[in-house]
Amino acid sequence: MDYNATTPLDPDVIQAMTEAMWEAWGNPSSSYSAGRRAKDIINAARENLAKMIGGKPQEIIFTSGGTESNNLVIHSVVKHFRENQATRENAVQRQPPGDGAKPHLITCTVEHDSIRLPLQHLEREGVAEVTFVPVSTVSGQAEVDDVLASVRPTTCLVTIMLANNETGVIMRIPEISRRIRALNSGRVASGLPAVLVHTDAAQALGKRRVDVQDLGVDFLTIVGHKFYGPRIGALYVRGLGEQTPLYPMLFGGGQERNFRPGTENTPMIAGLGKAAELVSENCEVYEAHMREIRDYLEEQLQAAFGKRTCFNSHFPGTERLPNTCNVSIQGPQLQGRLVLAQCRTLLASVGAACHSDLGDQPSPVLLSCGVPVDVARNALRLSVGRSTTRAEVDLVVEDLKRAVARLDTPKAEAGPPL
Amino acid sequence: MDYNATTPLDPDVIQAMTEAMWEAWGNPSSSYSAGRRAKDIINAARENLAKMIGGKPQEIIFTSGGTESNNLVIHSVVKHFRENQATRENAVQRQPPGDGAKPHLITCTVEHDSIRLPLQHLEREGVAEVTFVPVSTVSGQAEVDDVLASVRPTTCLVTIMLANNETGVIMRIPEISRRIRALNSGRVASGLPAVLVHTDAAQALGKRRVDVQDLGVDFLTIVGHKFYGPRIGALYVRGLGEQTPLYPMLFGGGQERNFRPGTENTPMIAGLGKAAELVSENCEVYEAHMREIRDYLEEQLQAAFGKRTCFNSHFPGTERLPNTCNVSIQGPQLQGRLVLAQCRTLLASVGAACHSDLGDQPSPVLLSCGVPVDVARNALRLSVGRSTTRAEVDLVVEDLKRAVARLDTPKAEAGPPL
Repeated sequence: MDYNATTPLDPDVIQAMTEAMWEAWGNPSSSYSAGRRAKDIINAARENLAKMIGGKPQEIIFTSGGTESNNLVIHSVVKHFRENQATRENAVQRQPPGDGAKPHLITCTVEHDSIRLPLQHLEREGVAEVTFVPVSTVSGQAEVDDVLASVRPTTCLVTIMLANNETGVIMRIPEISRRIRALNSGRVASGLPAVLVHTDAAQALGKRRVDVQDLGVDFLTIVGHKFYGPRIGALYVRGLGEQTPLYPMLFGGGQERNFRPGTENTPMIAGLGKAAELVSENCEVYEAHMREIRDYLEEQLQAAFGKRTCFNSHFPGTERLPNTCNVSIQGPQLQGRLVLAQCRTLLASVGAACHSDLGDQPSPVLLSCGVPVDVARNALRLSVGRSTTRAEVDLVVEDLKRAVARLDTPKAEAGPPL
Repeated sequence: MDYNATTPLDPDVIQAMTEAMWEAWGNPSSSYSAGRRAKDIINAARENLAKMIGGKPQEIIFTSGGTESNNLVIHSVVKHFRENQATRENAVQRQPPGDGAKPHLITCTVEHDSIRLPLQHLEREGVAEVTFVPVSTVSGQAEVDDVLASVRPTTCLVTIMLANNETGVIMRIPEISRRIRALNSGRVASGLPAVLVHTDAAQALGKRRVDVQDLGVDFLTIVGHKFYGPRIGALYVRGLGEQTPLYPMLFGGGQERNFRPGTENTPMIAGLGKAAELVSENCEVYEAHMREIRDYLEEQLQAAFGKRTCFNSHFPGTERLPNTCNVSIQGPQLQGRLVLAQCRTLLASVGAACHSDLGDQPSPVLLSCGVPVDVARNALRLSVGRSTTRAEVDLVVEDLKRAVARLDTPKAEAGPPL
């Protein structure tokens, strides 16, 4: 029950990748048949990705993964700000946002490290200014008003995740985009940079409908291994190269129209395309199944642990992912890591996998959402997948009951630690 | 005969990847068994890569490919120069290489685009200065004396490829490294930055022995898809983090000790490890086979086209790759692209695959090596693989004979173009 950390590859995805490994190993830049075959596979995958999110194929750039996609967006808007600043400084009649001003970026306090860390790096280097909007302890969301209130003359990007990996909370991206767009017309007229909107959709794709037109974003990060696809990613860029700027981080052999050079990883791209196709076809079915199983899980947890059960991801009126259950079972010995260590069948985590070295510190995400320290310490992030069954839920709940019973017993009698 | 563009995946590599796709899909950062299994596979692959090049596992960083590895080295040394400059400027007693000096990098005129373009980009941005050392028209190599003569007080990197993809010429990296090291002791004593040495070994790996101790380099680029492995890469960094600095381009979840974050691409890494293992075990066999076939190919070409045959990669006294034959068949209608278009079985190229949009312009690499324009225009880059046979060579030479005969015929009689 750790499908938010990663997912298995769908057998159809493996088949697409295996076929490409055997049959489409040509260099996609080669002009003969083997190259063209690889190129065709890449283009078909690009179409499938575009279709999954309601964009156009030419708006999709393949990357090595979500970390690269997120870093690329940040790199790009900072670069764009500076280029335009140089232009502004040359045009004497226009002065705002001021000589030598730094670009300003807005995000929130519960983002993945691949957003938080590059932004903190830019801050530390003195290259950019960043506002980390706190999430509301009532809604679990970055409040739209707070995001808008953070906008400065130098703001060039708002980057807010679509869904949080620990709480499953869905952020209000459509409203943020709408209000930013309304702001932009006036900004551009007065010589200020337009604010672009990015969302990291890593956790949302494959779990609920994701449509870039509804979201209204300029950039959207796609991560294959969260929706039963391979460990590469992509970036959606609205009107790439015409409407929205993209400045490459890498320079090389011209692939991906120079936006992301490097010989294309045909089998991985084939697999990503297949995974996207499956999501386009079946997303509603996946979502309904996950929601049913997750809701059953929450019922069973409530039944098993009664008043000790504390759902950390229930924010009244806030939409959340259909597959995620963040639960604490209250008790002095029931820290998340201890509970999981006692479990025999349940595999889950206490937060993002890349934070697995945090030890017993409570999750910063949950603390940001207003979960009390003692509750946050006990948190388990349970996330179900496309084929999780009620029977598995029953097993997991039994497993947790045994684990909790064992840990509830005074230490002296609990036996040696596992 | 285009194995320098890319290679098929070895069946053992596909098997390793397929197994990892089915069985090791866990997030390598997860602390439970599925995560540990993935981590173990990654560590085993790292050991295989290190073994292939005579380095240590902890000196290997996985990347998305050669383009990223090359860009990362350049990014890193420039960043290191600036950081040290800031330190130097704080320490008043030391002044060289001078306030606000730009880092200087040395390369040669026949590098891959993933070296040339990032360097030109830095130049254009005014961030760094670059010397492009011309290759000798006698040896086809960047001459060691020329490289050394280009060193300035501000030089921080020499990056010269190990083997050229078009001519197969092997550069004299061991001598360059030795002489740079000799220079460095004096430089460091007088407060100048040490010059680091990088080689892009993309074309050499799997075709001849590559050993970082013999080469004496600080950085070495590894590209899987040139040695029957997958489309990812790696970077060797001597004494990573202790002896040689590496500044990440991406920030995220802490993978690869923060030098290259992003959820690890376990199946690709498993495949790269298997490909490296095969090279470690069989490199001499591969090399001997390729040399025999390539030499046979050159004999047959000479026999077929006599004095019209011009080998563009024969530089007396210069070592070259065992698999590469760069040949021009002289004649007014025999431009490389025209000849290949007439061939029925031969698939080859006229230069790097990522330059396949150059049209009929002669290869800049060959021109740099002193090949006359008319000869360079007719060049064919033929590169053989591990399983190319003499019978295939015979077929290819027959094919070329037919193509040339057809093109030799005055145009009016040659029939419609294919």
